[in-house]
Amino acid sequence: MSTEAVSSESKTQCPLPLTRSSVLAAHRAIDGQIHRTPVLTSSSLAASLPGKNTLYFKAENLQRGGAFKFRGASYSLACLTPDELAKGVCTHSSGNHAGALALAAKQRGVPCYVVMPSNSAQPKIDAVRAYGASITFCAPTARARAAALATVRAQTGAAFVPPYDAANTILGQGTAMLELLAQAPEPLAAVVAPVGGGGLLAGTALAAEGTGVRVFGAEPAGADDCARGLEEGRRREDVDARTIADGLRTPVGVLNFGVIRESVEGVITVSDEEIIEAMRLLWERMKVVVEPSGAASFAAVRSGQFQALGIEGPVGVILSGGNVDLSKPLPWVQAQVHANPGSS
Amino acid sequence: MSTEAVSSESKTQCPLPLTRSSVLAAHRAIDGQIHRTPVLTSSSLAASLPGKNTLYFKAENLQRGGAFKFRGASYSLACLTPDELAKGVCTHSSGNHAGALALAAKQRGVPCYVVMPSNSAQPKIDAVRAYGASITFCAPTARARAAALATVRAQTGAAFVPPYDAANTILGQGTAMLELLAQAPEPLAAVVAPVGGGGLLAGTALAAEGTGVRVFGAEPAGADDCARGLEEGRRREDVDARTIADGLRTPVGVLNFGVIRESVEGVITVSDEEIIEAMRLLWERMKVVVEPSGAASFAAVRSGQFQALGIEGPVGVILSGGNVDLSKPLPWVQAQVHANPGSS
Repeated sequence: MSTEAVSSESKTQCPLPLTRSSVLAAHRAIDGQIHRTPVLTSSSLAASLPGKNTLYFKAENLQRGGAFKFRGASYSLACLTPDELAKGVCTHSSGNHAGALALAAKQRGVPCYVVMPSNSAQPKIDAVRAYGASITFCAPTARARAAALATVRAQTGAAFVPPYDAANTILGQGTAMLELLAQAPEPLAAVVAPVGGGGLLAGTALAAEGTGVRVFGAEPAGADDCARGLEEGRRREDVDARTIADGLRTPVGVLNFGVIRESVEGVITVSDEEIIEAMRLLWERMKVVVEPSGAASFAAVRSGQFQALGIEGPVGVILSGGNVDLSKPLPWVQAQVHANPGSS
Repeated sequence: MSTEAVSSESKTQCPLPLTRSSVLAAHRAIDGQIHRTPVLTSSSLAASLPGKNTLYFKAENLQRGGAFKFRGASYSLACLTPDELAKGVCTHSSGNHAGALALAAKQRGVPCYVVMPSNSAQPKIDAVRAYGASITFCAPTARARAAALATVRAQTGAAFVPPYDAANTILGQGTAMLELLAQAPEPLAAVVAPVGGGGLLAGTALAAEGTGVRVFGAEPAGADDCARGLEEGRRREDVDARTIADGLRTPVGVLNFGVIRESVEGVITVSDEEIIEAMRLLWERMKVVVEPSGAASFAAVRSGQFQALGIEGPVGVILSGGNVDLSKPLPWVQAQVHANPGSS
């Protein structure tokens, strides 16, 4: 496969084009560090859908740090030279990538510097801090973030580990799909992964190359830049994101979009209501804590659009993360309260 | 091992005394029907405790029907004759056993009759009904329950499957421990399982026989009949249960107590506050939905009493179930609201 886009800043990024064997190499490199997360099934959820496909849920919410992001962070670190590692790593993120990088750095005993917008959610700040990373707060704008990151890099010499738009990040994320293919007791007909920046979806597509598994993305209707970009034939550079799925609010990356355009059959958009319903079903029936972004793939599988494809055979569903603020009411309880303000 | 107690009503119960090889036979009988639930770890939870023991969590909340109860129900069915199966099975339960038996009966295509107190929680009623069982409601007293069950048995000829005080139930529940021993990548030093009726704890003790693994029970302080019975040298016949852990409110069974007295090193009691805190940590850090009864074992591991034992080596923790009413506020959120009634 070929891609036009090159966005890597590090000299240690995997050379393009990216292939399935690059994902296999990534998996060998991080195998001892990551959790081999379980693959779960639910006969009642499978039976509730028109297609009756057996569903294999790859539970990346049970990954270290609570999300698949730890795979890409671990592999990015594995590709750095000892000199680079000694100076540490840095990134900007308000979400799961910050925690994942901080945890991967802690695991290897290297310094980690994270630039976070000052309005980041407190649990995310606490997680990054608990993993021992240094946090620099900035104003919540792209310009302030870039400036703060440049200052951190100048002061520390730390290597920048991008959250999604980088070869090694994509390859690391793709290792979840490799495991799913090995863990499922029968060949998959299709797989669905959520798409925000596109690291997971692009990595999934690479891992599926040559297997015959059809690959689909799941994107919130309120942040559908990837789906629109595919329709229009070119990547959208920004997105006016309005969705509960906070992990999917970023525009799809350059390198990511190239892979997705070539190897992903389609991106299915789902409403926030569909995401919340999918999330509730996963919690109630499968007893797993999945965040809204993590439930988007199951919401897509439940959609009329996916069911109308008439796919026969087992379907893989990647549950990407489980980082939810559990001190707040659950979204479906909130929704009920809003719908019936007079009820207790 | 020997036990004095015999409580089986069915001719098809496993003969006493119960042994580890009876548990192995039970596992062979139900292996294709049950989920081999994953064993999870959390380095942050392990590091947070004084003993720093590696913790292996057996996630029975991910079992079919959301609890270990499905194991005992499946094995009880596996032991019935074709004639008995044709007439169906019956039980009384307001909780997980009713759903587990209904699901196991549905899987085998046999009729199932459940007597439930009229004040049972709606989600439990819905689950039993969704699995296709016939429900007979009764007044919430032991006498009304026994009368209703006798009527059902007289009318249908269905075989009674007791929730915990029966050899086959105990053997089925013990299969979770067999799997944990096989799945953990190193030998365990100890294991902790919750105790209500005692099916899971007795089965765990049988499965651990001869392995050198020290076996402990975890019981709510507000329903500590088993711990008191062990201290006093004889089983307490009832319990004035006041605990959030609704699955652990029953008094320990006769057969169960006999096994526990012989093979369990101790039962650790934990307060409801400790249970809720353990539950919150499991949800937040491990991303699994665990009910209060299911979190009691981890609460016991976190207790000063357990940590003071100075056990070295890995500890198994059985998370017994995940059936929580998710339409209600989470218990720690409720607790916060009660503590700060003026806050939003």
